[in-house]
Amino acid sequence: MTSNKKRKEIASKWFKKLQLEICRSFEKIEEDYRKKNNLKNSGKFIKRTWRRNKKNIQGGGGVTAIMRGNVFEKVGVNISVVKGRFSKEFKMEIRGAEKRAEFWAAGISVVTHMQSPLIPTIHFNTRYIVTTESWFGGGTDLTPCIYNANDKKFFHHKLKTVCNKYNKNYYKKYKKWCDNYFFLKHRNEMRGVGGIFFDYLNTGNWQKDFSFCQDLGRAFIEIYPSIVKKYVGKKWTIKEKEKQLFKRGKYVEFNLLYDRGTRFGLMTGGNTDAILMSLPPNVKWP
Amino acid sequence: MTSNKKRKEIASKWFKKLQLEICRSFEKIEEDYRKKNNLKNSGKFIKRTWRRNKKNIQGGGGVTAIMRGNVFEKVGVNISVVKGRFSKEFKMEIRGAEKRAEFWAAGISVVTHMQSPLIPTIHFNTRYIVTTESWFGGGTDLTPCIYNANDKKFFHHKLKTVCNKYNKNYYKKYKKWCDNYFFLKHRNEMRGVGGIFFDYLNTGNWQKDFSFCQDLGRAFIEIYPSIVKKYVGKKWTIKEKEKQLFKRGKYVEFNLLYDRGTRFGLMTGGNTDAILMSLPPNVKWP
Repeated sequence: MTSNKKRKEIASKWFKKLQLEICRSFEKIEEDYRKKNNLKNSGKFIKRTWRRNKKNIQGGGGVTAIMRGNVFEKVGVNISVVKGRFSKEFKMEIRGAEKRAEFWAAGISVVTHMQSPLIPTIHFNTRYIVTTESWFGGGTDLTPCIYNANDKKFFHHKLKTVCNKYNKNYYKKYKKWCDNYFFLKHRNEMRGVGGIFFDYLNTGNWQKDFSFCQDLGRAFIEIYPSIVKKYVGKKWTIKEKEKQLFKRGKYVEFNLLYDRGTRFGLMTGGNTDAILMSLPPNVKWP
Repeated sequence: MTSNKKRKEIASKWFKKLQLEICRSFEKIEEDYRKKNNLKNSGKFIKRTWRRNKKNIQGGGGVTAIMRGNVFEKVGVNISVVKGRFSKEFKMEIRGAEKRAEFWAAGISVVTHMQSPLIPTIHFNTRYIVTTESWFGGGTDLTPCIYNANDKKFFHHKLKTVCNKYNKNYYKKYKKWCDNYFFLKHRNEMRGVGGIFFDYLNTGNWQKDFSFCQDLGRAFIEIYPSIVKKYVGKKWTIKEKEKQLFKRGKYVEFNLLYDRGTRFGLMTGGNTDAILMSLPPNVKWP
């Protein structure tokens, strides 16, 4: 059995590697677009390292990678490894932290906002959390502003394939969890067309749980670029763009009103810029 | 002594009257601007009545008034009179509702988003709430995107004058409350340049407390238009406009992450469109 310390190392290393691969894959899309359209510049990720400097109590940091390009209007691919103590108020909300408030958490998080309103926004996230217990969590969900049944089908099919490799019940369970989670109660509507969402994953087989998260990461790199490529270069209208800006408003509402990751980050003294990097570059409300 | 029922009537009637007067005053600014610039159209408020239709349990409704003009990019002046029962989770947060979850609430709320980045955003709100207890609450705060010391001074001076008419301690107390309330913890910065904020106002003299709220409403109609007129017609740059859009992003963050009014509305099954009408028409995040 891998030691606790070793597990943290392995997980952190993986998130770092995945960040690199996602960035590389998205930059390739930008570069291909540049070549095809004879443009001078293509989007490149800008990386920034940040550290939490409340030493002893709150430690760790992360690397934010952000790209603004011709295809990706704004995309953030963030990793972080943080440790510390939950506040009195917050620890009751976290499994295994009721008695001992110490935590360690590492993860990767991606949100895309595209120039073309035809290309859905995607969110992807996996994390490994250690309190007195330890578990994996994460998920991915697709938010088109112009609905396309094939994209939805393709997205869910790919996720189902990964899930089924590990447990025949995962897909159904995690799909439902996703539908329930990415729901705007105040509007009585789903954020997008769903995906999967899971938390507290600890089957007792760490290697298997970790491998599931890795496969999700790999699947993400396969899934999203193929959706993007379907629409890159296709003409869209001002009206469709405006529709996208309104849809983004609801995305902001979800993230600030409901999202646990955002809440977790802001409540644990995380890096505000990194946490709010998922917000769209521009937004409209009616 | 005025009966409970009569008080509700008087308060509701006042909010209605104040809505009318604020709308009239803002439309006059639009009309003056139209004439001066020989424009064809000026902004006019569009009113919509809405009702909560969960009969028996949740009743009441409101009137939203929204204007999109040449000076006011988007301004909402909303009144509502609602009653019902708080949810189990929410009632513990409300004074006097711990044992009996019934509530009655009426109020007016104004938020402006201006075309010119030189003109501060203002928020104004007063309300009368009845549970097993009853009280007035409200406040007003100014959020410039380009700081001007004179505006701040003028704004605070006017508020102090109203406060001092009622109680020499109000201004200091309510100013501090405002500074603490309109604070973005995750950014460690104030929303704007402050103002006043108060809640649970019940001195035992209903008429006096009500009169204080009325005077605040009247002061608002005097204060804001004179700040607006100072800047109307003055040239601004694209750079200043962009600064305004980023500032608006923080306004959205405050409203969705912290604002009790927003939370109160969404948690009590209020009208989502009316509650979120305070959100800016367009926003940027870096």
